[in-house]
Amino acid sequence: PLIAVLPGDGIGPEVTREARRVLEALDLGLSFEEAPVGGAGYLASGHPLPDATLALAKRADAVLFGAIGDPRFEKLERHLRPEAALLGIRKALGLFANLRPATLFPGLEDASPLKPEVVNGLDIVIVRELIGDIYFGEKGHRTTPDGLRQGYDVMSYDEQEVTRIARVGFEMAKRRRKKLCSVDKANVLETSQLWRDVVTAMGAEYPEVELTHMYVDNAAMQLVRAPAAFDVIVTGNLFGDILSDQASMCAGSIGMLPSASLAAWSGANGMYEPIHGSAPDIAGQGKANPCAAILSAAMLLRHSLEDEASAQRIEKAVAAALAKGARTADLGGTLSTAAMGDAVLSELQ
Amino acid sequence: PLIAVLPGDGIGPEVTREARRVLEALDLGLSFEEAPVGGAGYLASGHPLPDATLALAKRADAVLFGAIGDPRFEKLERHLRPEAALLGIRKALGLFANLRPATLFPGLEDASPLKPEVVNGLDIVIVRELIGDIYFGEKGHRTTPDGLRQGYDVMSYDEQEVTRIARVGFEMAKRRRKKLCSVDKANVLETSQLWRDVVTAMGAEYPEVELTHMYVDNAAMQLVRAPAAFDVIVTGNLFGDILSDQASMCAGSIGMLPSASLAAWSGANGMYEPIHGSAPDIAGQGKANPCAAILSAAMLLRHSLEDEASAQRIEKAVAAALAKGARTADLGGTLSTAAMGDAVLSELQ
Ligand SMILES: CC(C)[C@H](C(=O)O)[C@@H](O)C(=O)O
Ligand SMILES: CC(C)[C@H](C(=O)O)[C@@H](O)C(=O)O
Repeated sequence: PLIAVLPGDGIGPEVTREARRVLEALDLGLSFEEAPVGGAGYLASGHPLPDATLALAKRADAVLFGAIGDPRFEKLERHLRPEAALLGIRKALGLFANLRPATLFPGLEDASPLKPEVVNGLDIVIVRELIGDIYFGEKGHRTTPDGLRQGYDVMSYDEQEVTRIARVGFEMAKRRRKKLCSVDKANVLETSQLWRDVVTAMGAEYPEVELTHMYVDNAAMQLVRAPAAFDVIVTGNLFGDILSDQASMCAGSIGMLPSASLAAWSGANGMYEPIHGSAPDIAGQGKANPCAAILSAAMLLRHSLEDEASAQRIEKAVAAALAKGARTADLGGTLSTAAMGDAVLSELQ
Repeated sequence: PLIAVLPGDGIGPEVTREARRVLEALDLGLSFEEAPVGGAGYLASGHPLPDATLALAKRADAVLFGAIGDPRFEKLERHLRPEAALLGIRKALGLFANLRPATLFPGLEDASPLKPEVVNGLDIVIVRELIGDIYFGEKGHRTTPDGLRQGYDVMSYDEQEVTRIARVGFEMAKRRRKKLCSVDKANVLETSQLWRDVVTAMGAEYPEVELTHMYVDNAAMQLVRAPAAFDVIVTGNLFGDILSDQASMCAGSIGMLPSASLAAWSGANGMYEPIHGSAPDIAGQGKANPCAAILSAAMLLRHSLEDEASAQRIEKAVAAALAKGARTADLGGTLSTAAMGDAVLSELQ
């Protein structure tokens, strides 16, 4: 199988390197091809998502993605900014389902700003819709009747879009602790009302799954108050963006959290990336935590290559390294990115 | 001065009663008039915001609001649901500026799910725009070209709307620790791009205020990681809804947090309400924490009646009662709503 490696910007290349080393060490007969994306893509070819990069992503069996974002390019027109590459690949590959697990590895209780008893046993998955919502609706600037500049963005979901992401939420919950919480803002938004109606209707197909609905403001609160009470959360693109970053703090550090972006429930081409960003402030210093990238590689094996055994080998190696005290700076330790990668590699055997 | 008292639904009446007792005890020559709103308004007159209630709110010098929301009315048409009353009053009174302070009262460190060292010294204010954004844009259901049901909602802000709320943020920061963080999603939304441009331009008028910009996903994370690092946050209606509920957890309990909704920076008619909801599950049981309502009454005195001294008397009484160990159930104690009210009253002298 061919893995497209898109390291991107900032700490992207550093952490992706460790993830690739781990994949290589497993000796699964994978081949790797690398291409620039984000600010790196813009520098290389004048566009954040060069044609050759997108073609590689489409051709590959899976994409291992680093991070994008570079303050030097923030003032460019929107379609030339690094973020456009991320949104562009998601859309072009039809990656509608973003899985963001947040698990607390034993030993990391201290790294979380939340009290240990609040995060103990944390094991939740946020299923975020990724190619609809206000991200991809009509947007722009216009002038009001009073002659004022106005910015606008249209949020929307149709029943098909909600159905396919809700399906992922229910299937996920069915295989886990059988609790699905759908998050919306149906008391204010019509998009959410449709969302809630569709999810509720689908609930009838999954009698074994306990379905609840929660307003997004309340969900943001409950994710601080009692995050471990959740099992699977399913929500739209915008709310999922906010809640999953927030939930990352329960897991000790955003440097621990992987993600998968899928075009189908399983077996298809997908993209795998740490949920942290490019962190320009620490880029190139070997300080970044590679665990999120390494755990993303595990998700790649699980979802795109259907190799559950190898996925678990990686996850257990990360847990074992942490259990022996391996810690990068974000976790209160002193290991470099490469040394943390070594620590995981030496547990793989 | 005339205070309109709108107790609303669920625990609204219970907590508002205590707030009113505290105001009465101060002997400021206030007169009070009560009217139904929300589910209670619908029951009384077939509409969640009866004409007489709105007229009273307009006539009064300030509105003391309880909470709205009643599961019995969730299936009604949107304009008949309890929430419509809240949105209706905000809009009718032009209450564009929602101030949501989150302060940790000494002694409540234990009630917070966050570690004491994370919330120590917490004293932040979220300034939320309240009558624009996706809350009040065009919205509805339509059919896509493929014949699918679709829900949609338009987010927008014009430069005037951003200017007036940003002004409140800067003025607030100027009187405090001189740090203003503007929260948006400018890497994806055009509404946010306009927001950021306007706020940035206004920054030039306030050289003494340190202005930063943060994406909403990152802000949600930082509010868990290091909430005490913020001073004033200014943001739109939707993001403010989410972040302020989330921030409430830092303060130990949502039962501690008051809010003010203003039509002008000071001196005008305003509405004051706890940020917690109607909590139907504990309504009528005398379990609710009245502190948020009582502290809202303090904000009423400060902002609408410009009586800073009385506002501080109330706030000190709440702090003193807590310091002596007075606690309702949400804070890990056993006091009833009325007993907590008594505890505050006995510190007022
Ligand atoms: C970089 C940005 C466009 C992106 C998003 O909002 O989706 C990021 O925050 C993420 O969550 O992957
Ligand atoms: C009840 C609801 C419409 C309201 C809002 O979203 O504004 C509430 O959550 C609030 O924050 O006051």
